[in-house]
Order: sequence, then C-alpha cells, then structure tokens
Amino acid sequence: MMKNILIINASPRGKRSNSRRLTELFAEKWLEKNPDYTITHREVGQESIPHVSEAWIAAAFKPVALRTEEDQTTLVISNQLIAELRNANVIVLGSPMYNWSIPSALKAYLDQVIRVHETIEISMEDPKNPYVGLLKHKKLYLLLSRGNGGYGSGEYYEHMNFQSTYLKTVFNIMGVADITEISLNGEAIGGESFEQAMKSVELQIDQLTI
Amino acid sequence: MMKNILIINASPRGKRSNSRRLTELFAEKWLEKNPDYTITHREVGQESIPHVSEAWIAAAFKPVALRTEEDQTTLVISNQLIAELRNANVIVLGSPMYNWSIPSALKAYLDQVIRVHETIEISMEDPKNPYVGLLKHKKLYLLLSRGNGGYGSGEYYEHMNFQSTYLKTVFNIMGVADITEISLNGEAIGGESFEQAMKSVELQIDQLTI
Repeated sequence: MMKNILIINASPRGKRSNSRRLTELFAEKWLEKNPDYTITHREVGQESIPHVSEAWIAAAFKPVALRTEEDQTTLVISNQLIAELRNANVIVLGSPMYNWSIPSALKAYLDQVIRVHETIEISMEDPKNPYVGLLKHKKLYLLLSRGNGGYGSGEYYEHMNFQSTYLKTVFNIMGVADITEISLNGEAIGGESFEQAMKSVELQIDQLTI
Repeated sequence: MMKNILIINASPRGKRSNSRRLTELFAEKWLEKNPDYTITHREVGQESIPHVSEAWIAAAFKPVALRTEEDQTTLVISNQLIAELRNANVIVLGSPMYNWSIPSALKAYLDQVIRVHETIEISMEDPKNPYVGLLKHKKLYLLLSRGNGGYGSGEYYEHMNFQSTYLKTVFNIMGVADITEISLNGEAIGGESFEQAMKSVELQIDQLTI
C-alpha cells in the first residue's frame, strides 16, 4: 500500500503566506525523496470549516446506532477530516501565529477532528490520565510562522506561546507522539534577519525530508 | 452618562449551556444592584463571526486614509465589535472550554477585535514589552465552564489550560488589567459534585455583583 502525506494549510493568506511557502517546499522536497507517497491537501485557512454547533455536539456524543440522518449530515465534514488524518502516515501542518495562538479557522478544524471514539477515548478510571489517543504511528511536522521571535522553550515570550504548545498538546492527546516543530520567526520585523531566518528554515526542511 | 455592561456568550449551546446560565445570572444580579447600567448582548457562539481573511489583514494594516470602500466593508464587523468593547464599563465573557482552549467562534471574535491602532499599539522600541493596550478602565469577568477540574494555578492540569490563561493574556494586552475569573468545573462528570460546584459558583456571582 502506498503511503500518504497530508498537507494542512491554516493561513488565510495565499501567495503572501510564509507558512504556506514552507509547506509547499516541504511537500516538494518530500516527494522528490519519497516518490512512493501519495499527497493529500487540506485547505483550512481559505475554506470555511464550520464551528462546532449544538447539533454537532449532540450528534457526536450520541451512540452511532442512535444517530438520525440529520445527525449524520451534521458530522459529514468531521468524518471526512478525521478520515484524512487516519489515512495519513505523515502530517504537515503549516500555520501562522495569530494573537499568540492559532487562527480561528485552525481551531474550527481541531474542534471538528478531536472527537470521542474517533480520535480520542476518555476514561475517568484514572482521572490524572484520562485520554487515549487513537491516531497511531504518525509523524507530524509543524511548520509555523510568527511575527516575532522569543517564543521557544526558556525564551522571553515562552509563556505567551499558545500556538506550538497548544498544537503539540492536542496532537499528543490524539495519539500523535512523534512531532517535529520548525518555526520561522520575525515576519513582522522583516529585513535581513528575517531573510536569514527563512534561509535557515529552508535548510532545516531540506535536511528533514531526507 | 449611563454606564454599560457588555455580556458576551461564546457557547454554541442555548439553554443547555452552563456558561450562558452563569452570564444570565450575572446580568440579572448586576442590574438588580446597579440599575444605572445599560446592557448590551453580544452573541458569539450561535452567530457566525467570520474568520480573519487575507483581505481583512490587508485592510486592517493599511493606514485609515488609504482604505478603499471594499477595505472599509471588510472591517465593518470588526469595527462594531470593537465599538461595543470601548463602550463597555464592565465586560462579562461566558465561555466553555473546548479541547483545552476556547471555542473557535470565540477565537474568531478575538481575531476580529485584537487590532493595531484600535485595541493595541505595537512599538518595537522595547522588544521585551512591545504592547500597549488601548482598552482602559474596564472590568472583565470571565465566567468559564469546563468538563473537568484541576486546571487552576498549581493544579494537575494547569499546563493544559489554554482557556483562562489565554483569555487573560489577550485581554491584558488590550489594556484590560482588572480581571476576575469564576470557573465552573466538572460538567462532564456531573452528579452531586457538579451540583455543589454550580451552587458555589452561583453564590460567588451573587457576592461579586454587590
């Protein structure tokens, strides 16, 4: 069976998006070196993934056998997005930092895919460790863009990083343990230091995809 | 001039929403004790606040004098939401925790209202302290609901709290320093302990609104 790489783009920007530029470069390099992979694109930033609604919650928490036709319709998008994640051997998620967190469109995506009996199980037997992730044997690459720097571990703005910290937390909970983060910092500052950062990140991607 | 209280509801649920029940109780008690206040309701969970788009970013970062009619149209909702915040003396925000963070609809709201020259100024002169909040002299009450407990300071799940920690961070950055959090924990567990938690929170709200 051919392996699959899933490329998720969360930026609302098109050609001007730096995170999108990074995912494109990643896909290109990956397929050069791993021609046995199929590729799937999931657009999040420029498509409207619906917010979870009261009907969605009712349907998702209902046993499958009791779901009405309307319940099933409400979950169609969620089912499709989850199927894409399950089918992927490698997931590449490109996202900017928006207001120290992820764009609302990416949160809408995550609210659609984090689902009991589908991507997580919850057991209150051990209240300190209640989550069992159902997405197994996957590798996740986070390709992140930020206006400023200093959000890394031990750095000045670490406590304000609600982007990579959050993404790692929720993918871990869904069972994705093997996560590599590459961050491009300083877009809002620009200039030569940003050009240098871009070059360094491009090099990292080239080395990662070997 | 009459004072104003702004009630923001972020839950997609109607009558079944616990955070909504708390904001309703808060508003009722507040107006009983402070009849000189006008009240404004902002629905976030059940209305569709658009995600920030590429056109929105271009318009928001353009000097006012250069904005086209299309730019202005793109910013209409953002302008209205910001005007509501400016007009409020007291802000009450009710939100559930969704996947250890806020619902995507509330993130869409925040992405619309966190805006340079409107709610924040950014100065790179002091890179370690670049943000100046423009929303002044406001009191914020966070009325939060969570499926489980243990997300408080020093508690077991504190590192997974991307809800109140995040909300406090972004409202602080917008200039709102006076923030009180009331959390109702254990909705997913239910039973007697949840009933007790609800009673305790109702009492706290009653005492706060004196």
